[in-house]
Amino acid sequence: MAQKPSIPKGTRDFSPTEITKRNYIFNIIKKSFELYGFQPIETPSFEKSETLMGKYGEEGDRLIFKILESGQYFEKAQQKIFFIDDKTLTLISDLLTSIFQRIRKDLKDTCTNEISIKNLNIISEYISKNICTILNNSPEIIYINQFEERIAFYFKENSRYIAADIVNRKYFFDDETAFDRFRLAEQKNIQTDLFERLKSYYVLNTSSNKLTSLISEKALRYDLTVPFARYVVQHQNELTLPFKRYQIQPVWRADRPQKGRFREFYQCDADVVGSTSLIQEVEFVQLYDAVFTKLGLTETIIKVNNRKILSGIAEIIGAKDKLIDFTVALDKLDKIGVDGVTKEMLSKGISEDAIKKVQPLFSFKGSNRKKLIQLKEMLATSEEGLKGVSELQFIVDAIDNVGLQSAILDIDVTLARGLNYYTGVIYEVIINKVKIGSIGGGGRYDDLTSIFGLKNLSGIGISFGLDRIYIVLEELDLFKDLELPKPKVLFLNYNAKNIPNRLQALASLRANGIAAEIYPDTATSNKQQQKQFKYLQKRAIKFVVLDDEIGENLRLKNTITGEIIEGNIKNLLLKIKN
Amino acid sequence: MAQKPSIPKGTRDFSPTEITKRNYIFNIIKKSFELYGFQPIETPSFEKSETLMGKYGEEGDRLIFKILESGQYFEKAQQKIFFIDDKTLTLISDLLTSIFQRIRKDLKDTCTNEISIKNLNIISEYISKNICTILNNSPEIIYINQFEERIAFYFKENSRYIAADIVNRKYFFDDETAFDRFRLAEQKNIQTDLFERLKSYYVLNTSSNKLTSLISEKALRYDLTVPFARYVVQHQNELTLPFKRYQIQPVWRADRPQKGRFREFYQCDADVVGSTSLIQEVEFVQLYDAVFTKLGLTETIIKVNNRKILSGIAEIIGAKDKLIDFTVALDKLDKIGVDGVTKEMLSKGISEDAIKKVQPLFSFKGSNRKKLIQLKEMLATSEEGLKGVSELQFIVDAIDNVGLQSAILDIDVTLARGLNYYTGVIYEVIINKVKIGSIGGGGRYDDLTSIFGLKNLSGIGISFGLDRIYIVLEELDLFKDLELPKPKVLFLNYNAKNIPNRLQALASLRANGIAAEIYPDTATSNKQQQKQFKYLQKRAIKFVVLDDEIGENLRLKNTITGEIIEGNIKNLLLKIKN
Repeated sequence: MAQKPSIPKGTRDFSPTEITKRNYIFNIIKKSFELYGFQPIETPSFEKSETLMGKYGEEGDRLIFKILESGQYFEKAQQKIFFIDDKTLTLISDLLTSIFQRIRKDLKDTCTNEISIKNLNIISEYISKNICTILNNSPEIIYINQFEERIAFYFKENSRYIAADIVNRKYFFDDETAFDRFRLAEQKNIQTDLFERLKSYYVLNTSSNKLTSLISEKALRYDLTVPFARYVVQHQNELTLPFKRYQIQPVWRADRPQKGRFREFYQCDADVVGSTSLIQEVEFVQLYDAVFTKLGLTETIIKVNNRKILSGIAEIIGAKDKLIDFTVALDKLDKIGVDGVTKEMLSKGISEDAIKKVQPLFSFKGSNRKKLIQLKEMLATSEEGLKGVSELQFIVDAIDNVGLQSAILDIDVTLARGLNYYTGVIYEVIINKVKIGSIGGGGRYDDLTSIFGLKNLSGIGISFGLDRIYIVLEELDLFKDLELPKPKVLFLNYNAKNIPNRLQALASLRANGIAAEIYPDTATSNKQQQKQFKYLQKRAIKFVVLDDEIGENLRLKNTITGEIIEGNIKNLLLKIKN
Repeated sequence: MAQKPSIPKGTRDFSPTEITKRNYIFNIIKKSFELYGFQPIETPSFEKSETLMGKYGEEGDRLIFKILESGQYFEKAQQKIFFIDDKTLTLISDLLTSIFQRIRKDLKDTCTNEISIKNLNIISEYISKNICTILNNSPEIIYINQFEERIAFYFKENSRYIAADIVNRKYFFDDETAFDRFRLAEQKNIQTDLFERLKSYYVLNTSSNKLTSLISEKALRYDLTVPFARYVVQHQNELTLPFKRYQIQPVWRADRPQKGRFREFYQCDADVVGSTSLIQEVEFVQLYDAVFTKLGLTETIIKVNNRKILSGIAEIIGAKDKLIDFTVALDKLDKIGVDGVTKEMLSKGISEDAIKKVQPLFSFKGSNRKKLIQLKEMLATSEEGLKGVSELQFIVDAIDNVGLQSAILDIDVTLARGLNYYTGVIYEVIINKVKIGSIGGGGRYDDLTSIFGLKNLSGIGISFGLDRIYIVLEELDLFKDLELPKPKVLFLNYNAKNIPNRLQALASLRANGIAAEIYPDTATSNKQQQKQFKYLQKRAIKFVVLDDEIGENLRLKNTITGEIIEGNIKNLLLKIKN
């Protein structure tokens, strides 16, 4: 037997049960997105490489799955790697001419105007030693700079063979016309050989990274944000701004697979572009609350911060480049205490004076209102910092006014998620009941679409971490009431003569929206009857239509209560529907 | 401004409206699949190449999108393309030794035991002419066969240079120890150079096809059938047979994009494995009928045939290899008439005698029952043919008994879809109202999973052509009653002071399941107020909450009727819900 097949690492098959649970989450998210006025879009699984590459940093570029071109892609790539245009060809030909003329001229003295076998080593050494000087004296070489080193290498490597050819031609010094004839033939050989070797050299030494750009034009989606930006720019004339879209699709990353980290996974994003109104900042908090409440996940903590507050802090401590060190250290307050944090900050080069200025952050507890008052005082000298505070104030006031169903809004100045990316509010959702990290996040970014040439279009968006939410719901047993996609009724099949009647009954059930099936193979032995019962048990189907006797009469058994009722399909329908 | 971004050819962005229409079709198909007892599974977007390659024929292999490995894949591939193991290294070294010894021995006479510059051409010609003979006399060459041609080429190409080296060594014939020293040094140079050139040669001449297998280990799903077979084999211990699964996921093909043919498109498949019962053949007919009826597509024609009937016909006409020619010709009956078909069949080498035997097929009209009687007579001498007839008879009888809602079941012996693939029933669904080809198809296949080592597991499945169904529904205006995913209510935003109150009203609507949104930016001019109205019109939102005055009072306008009501959110809710 062949080896059991398997799937690529980091990918997953989903069983019917898993799909049902995943769809349950997807549907609640979708439904909520739509209640908030977001509309679905979908983009292709792969984009042009130019759309994705360079948008996620060097590490991101590496993790993007590239799709290989089809057809004779390697042959085409070779042509691109080593292509000699006519101008270069002329320059190389001229260069070789001047090399040979120079060799002839210089050797005339050394060899005392006579070539013999004893000159072979002299000629060879001359070529090997002087080729760089000769090349440097050729003005054209600047243009064909990329070949210079290889041509020098070629002449050095082949100096003995070239010398042998010269030695073999007595007339090398004697007759100008004969020399030219020799030179041309020699040059032709050398050129052919040189090009072949240059081609080999360049192709064989092409880095994988460089080759990729020549043999791949498409790549799998890495996230939903860049394709969304591309979508907005491409379809700008069809869209009405502000544009509120949601997108729930898989993305792919060539990351090292780990527990909970996959190479194919879904992202669930909602974004608005085309408005800077803070109402959206408020609505996304409500949206998080709505989704998690509906999922049964109460007491989620929606952490909120603002990039401008972080910039304000950087201003206050007088060290913009130390901001990440600062937030990382501050984040450890619960673990290592004020002393520990201070020590770490000092070790990172943040001055004692600076640390004093942000003292309030070391006892940053209590209500959001209290925190905002502290921040306002602390950032009094920073215009940008105060702008961040007033933005958070708007969100906090509005949420206080409208209320949340079950989530808690909490200002957290250590929140520095995607620092380079976000320009205003930053969100992150956690749940204390399960240790798993954030189950959602997002923020405001200015100018997302400018990477595709459309400027001044501010956006804000959030995303839900499906795989983690799944784990959390599983751990808290919140899938327990979910109905699995299995039939509600199974017809046993013991008597072939009953089949026409059973097919009619089945059709009635299905017409009434009841999922039902008949065991396809008619049992012809006790063993086969048992097999049908085993199937019933394994799939845990609630109702079974028995098939012990031939006839129109149907006997329906509730497999949970054991109750049996008899009758025609209309009688049974009532029982099954309840 | 940068060039407007675009997507790869053959792919599509889907707008909110398109997604709504597509989901409408998906949901009806899903719902019906589940009513019939099918369960959803999902498989990864990419599979290991070994899972997919070789399963779809040569053409299929070509159309599979391959994913490039990441990291130093090209360097690794080069090592695989040119790898010299120790044994080969020894053999090549021995070979070079024997070549030089042979050259020395042979030249001793030719050069009359003396080397001078005038021998250079002689030696060079000797090497060039005799290298093949020398190689052929070396028994080891069989093992390193792949190099033979290249080594001969190398010596021929470099004969003059090798000769020059020999000429330069007067002691070539004289002193055995000195010769060996020369030989070893020469061999080392030649070997290095030879390997470098061999590597270049093999890498540069590697076909794209061969290279692909070295730089790609994964490929995008080409259909849902092979991944399903892989799934069944991989998870055989977790599955209860018969296993009824459905799968609705995108597939990718590097096909030339055309109208209605895409490089990324969805397939919607339902299959059962692990049972040969003909009840499934019947149920799939009902399932097609159920889905198309629910979509409003009445009078679809479910064409049905059986591979065994086709085999029976092949038996009767005595030419198994002409079966496709036969069905292709027969299919033209309506267009070119009996004479035309007969002429085409004769031209394809089907005998007059054979054509007489299948005469009934030339007037193959009327009810399925009538057709079955004709087939039974015609195929009386073919056991397999009769088996096919009796299978069709079972389906026709059962469908007559249970009835169809709006589709028509029609036996069509020209149906030869996927001839090599199917082993029993063959389905194809068409609709006469729209010229578009088949909108569904399928059939029974034996032993699908045997490609992955699990034998004797019969399967049957059907698939729905989403993109074509979409076009048909669009053309017949069957999407007209579909509700688009847009908010039912828009709150205008003219007064910042009203925002807290409006956010509360919004929350109430959403809590009542009504999709609603507020225009995020507060208007500060007439022009900006007009912009909000334009937004309302463009999105064609049914209800608008006006915002002309500051206060708690809400004025709701029905944008279709123009009716305006005033009140608190509870009053408005009643109006909006109706």
